[in-house]
Amino acid sequence: MPETALPTALAALLGPAGLLTDPADIAPALTDWRGLYRGAALAVLRPASTEQVAGCVRLCADAGIAIVPQGGNTSMVGGATPGEDGRSVVLSLTRLNRIRAIDPVDMTMTAEAGVVLKAAQDAAAEAGCLFPLSLGAEGTATIGGVLSTNAGGNTTVRYGNARDLMLGLEVVLPDGQVWNGLRRLRKDNTGYALRHLFVGAEGTLGIVTAATLRLFARPRANEVLFCSVADEDAALAVFRRFREADESAIRAFEYMSGLGVDLAVKHIPGVTWPLAERADHYVLVDLASTRPDADLEGLAEQVLGAAMEAGEVLDAVIGGSEAKRQAIWRIREEHPEAQRREGASVKNDVSVPVSKVPELIRRASAACAALVPGIRPVPFGHLGDGNIHMNLLQPEGMDPAAFLARSHEIMEAVNSVVRDLEGSFSAEHGIGRLKTEMMASWRGGAELDAMRRIKAALDPQGLMNPGKVLP
Amino acid sequence: MPETALPTALAALLGPAGLLTDPADIAPALTDWRGLYRGAALAVLRPASTEQVAGCVRLCADAGIAIVPQGGNTSMVGGATPGEDGRSVVLSLTRLNRIRAIDPVDMTMTAEAGVVLKAAQDAAAEAGCLFPLSLGAEGTATIGGVLSTNAGGNTTVRYGNARDLMLGLEVVLPDGQVWNGLRRLRKDNTGYALRHLFVGAEGTLGIVTAATLRLFARPRANEVLFCSVADEDAALAVFRRFREADESAIRAFEYMSGLGVDLAVKHIPGVTWPLAERADHYVLVDLASTRPDADLEGLAEQVLGAAMEAGEVLDAVIGGSEAKRQAIWRIREEHPEAQRREGASVKNDVSVPVSKVPELIRRASAACAALVPGIRPVPFGHLGDGNIHMNLLQPEGMDPAAFLARSHEIMEAVNSVVRDLEGSFSAEHGIGRLKTEMMASWRGGAELDAMRRIKAALDPQGLMNPGKVLP
Repeated sequence: MPETALPTALAALLGPAGLLTDPADIAPALTDWRGLYRGAALAVLRPASTEQVAGCVRLCADAGIAIVPQGGNTSMVGGATPGEDGRSVVLSLTRLNRIRAIDPVDMTMTAEAGVVLKAAQDAAAEAGCLFPLSLGAEGTATIGGVLSTNAGGNTTVRYGNARDLMLGLEVVLPDGQVWNGLRRLRKDNTGYALRHLFVGAEGTLGIVTAATLRLFARPRANEVLFCSVADEDAALAVFRRFREADESAIRAFEYMSGLGVDLAVKHIPGVTWPLAERADHYVLVDLASTRPDADLEGLAEQVLGAAMEAGEVLDAVIGGSEAKRQAIWRIREEHPEAQRREGASVKNDVSVPVSKVPELIRRASAACAALVPGIRPVPFGHLGDGNIHMNLLQPEGMDPAAFLARSHEIMEAVNSVVRDLEGSFSAEHGIGRLKTEMMASWRGGAELDAMRRIKAALDPQGLMNPGKVLP
Repeated sequence: MPETALPTALAALLGPAGLLTDPADIAPALTDWRGLYRGAALAVLRPASTEQVAGCVRLCADAGIAIVPQGGNTSMVGGATPGEDGRSVVLSLTRLNRIRAIDPVDMTMTAEAGVVLKAAQDAAAEAGCLFPLSLGAEGTATIGGVLSTNAGGNTTVRYGNARDLMLGLEVVLPDGQVWNGLRRLRKDNTGYALRHLFVGAEGTLGIVTAATLRLFARPRANEVLFCSVADEDAALAVFRRFREADESAIRAFEYMSGLGVDLAVKHIPGVTWPLAERADHYVLVDLASTRPDADLEGLAEQVLGAAMEAGEVLDAVIGGSEAKRQAIWRIREEHPEAQRREGASVKNDVSVPVSKVPELIRRASAACAALVPGIRPVPFGHLGDGNIHMNLLQPEGMDPAAFLARSHEIMEAVNSVVRDLEGSFSAEHGIGRLKTEMMASWRGGAELDAMRRIKAALDPQGLMNPGKVLP
């Protein structure tokens, strides 16, 4: 098919509601929400069914036009933004937004790619179950997106990443074939684990159109603790104590710095100090159990007692009520917004082995301070997973643009420490466009070679989300 | 390299301890432990390091000789047995048997492929941690084997399959490159999930030489229950009750039939009736917690009380002591041996959605009874995962050989029900040689096509464990 025939063919396939070509209509799909990129596209395709997605893929393959799949468009790394050459279309999955099935006996839910994460959580809750994936963008991010990026979030320490919550997928392959792998089996050893290949591939190997997800029993007991701790090592020590005492009760274990909490209190109305005295390091512990009689307060008191005696915990508050639990969580959740209000910052979504978190925080902070005097480290995040958002705020009074001009150097300084600690330069945000250049040096040799072979085998024309993941 | 030069080159690489060619020495490696197959091989290679494995792969690739990786050689499906053409070598991983590292802070262990599963469990226990994978062959099966087959076992309902316990891999690729993917990170979204591709690939895409595994906190409380239940539906209902009450406490949930327990008592010295009255259906519930004060007995009594009132549980015994817990487990663990002593049997390792387990047992039993009058179904296994070993014993007095001659028909009868229930023809044993012919009809079309593309991309010569997995 000549490229000029493509618009007509797509219009015939998708109808007026399914095809946007007006520049004003397609503009929101051409940029990422961090505003790092602005791409170009021939059109935004809005298929309403898996068959229509397959039809789009076949037509584009015939015409040699690339496809950029897009869900809620909340990528932190430009993973859903098209390139600048205008030789691609954006394929939005947002009209594939049905929950196809929920089974509270199997504890599974089959949801289409465009279902918003929050809607999936709500549907599970209505069926008396829990879909535990939870992250900041959950009101916008979609099931297809969180699977294509293997999203993490706050509850990973207990329930795993998006990958771990997925039993089966439906995928439109680059040649337009539909693979129906929507199995809802806990055990199925029948050949290669294709589903794991598409999770985290960021749309470069095919388009996830639906997924069968694991559900869990809903917790009936919950307690949230906010503790000031002596230092980074103490934060880790407290995590170890809780893990040893009841690993299955830890639903989240988050680290925050003194400055991070200061900024949340300073900038966010309604966020207040939960403890009498300020400290330089804090942890938030979220405990949950399906047993109403789990005595989480007893567990907390026992662990905190020992940790205080050891000098690890300086002070602590146990939520005690739903309102107070939410107030504690808000301190953590408002970290990104509070940092935004304070000035420009460079974000690093990195991970290290759990044992190395204290060293990561200390060494990366020192490396950045040596690079930019007055820089303000605001590390926070998922200590229990070894995943720290190693963010760096501009020095007070510095020009934000001048600071951001040094982003690359700052990221390199952090990554150099991460590398030395055998960590990862992308813990939960993926590669997208932002980090493709890092792939060769971090994952090069045999690993990148194997990835390229797989890409070429499944997408020989290279039309699926080009310029993402692979350098 | 001409094929005739291969033995000399291998001898130079591996030394006398690393190369077996005497027919008597290599015989054990040429057959599987079920005795289904007898293959031929030029030699058994016994490399002692990853570098030696890579050297073997390069030499064999040069000479065009296939490689059959072998660990403990306990495959249920002939996955580690060479073909009959004599154009391959067996590569035994058993000399790669070091635990390279254990880190009780990260909760990870890096073990070489030849480490026996039991040795890995013991090493974890010595470090005060738990490596939870547990299965009948654990005294012989190796880490490389359990990962290459994505083994399951008794504790999958709580801790997941082998795949879920793996954070990183070291793999020798078909071209002899060594991929060092031994990362010990909980979160790492940097490109395609290669590690998940090698898990379950049964050595057809490369040779796993080492793995970084997840460890867990060791339970400090444990209780085991043995219950007679009204029927298959009641067995499922009791599982649901425990899951709702405390899903994280369920370490195993096993179904057994009346005949299965009868045979264990009949044939295995020391196995005794735990309940006053015989029944047609039983469940074993293993509860465990890291909290010493978890009150598992209270949990058990609460759930059993409600289940008895609902008529689901007829009678139950709570272990109460370590000796009694082991005695209960023994009834379940001796099922395969008891069946072997009773006569010939046809084994089906199948799975269905958890909600369909009762229907599977009833319908598959009826289908087989219609096929072979007097056939004796002995279904047992992992109800909590939807994975039932749907075994069929020969009719009393029938000639075992005559019965086994009908194996194919019987398996087809079971599989026909499994298929109707959207299940899998191989839940945890894999494909090996035994089930390759089923792949086209169960996983054909786009899925098998994608698998073949990946195989061709990574192993273009087709030398890695040929004749396994893919038809």
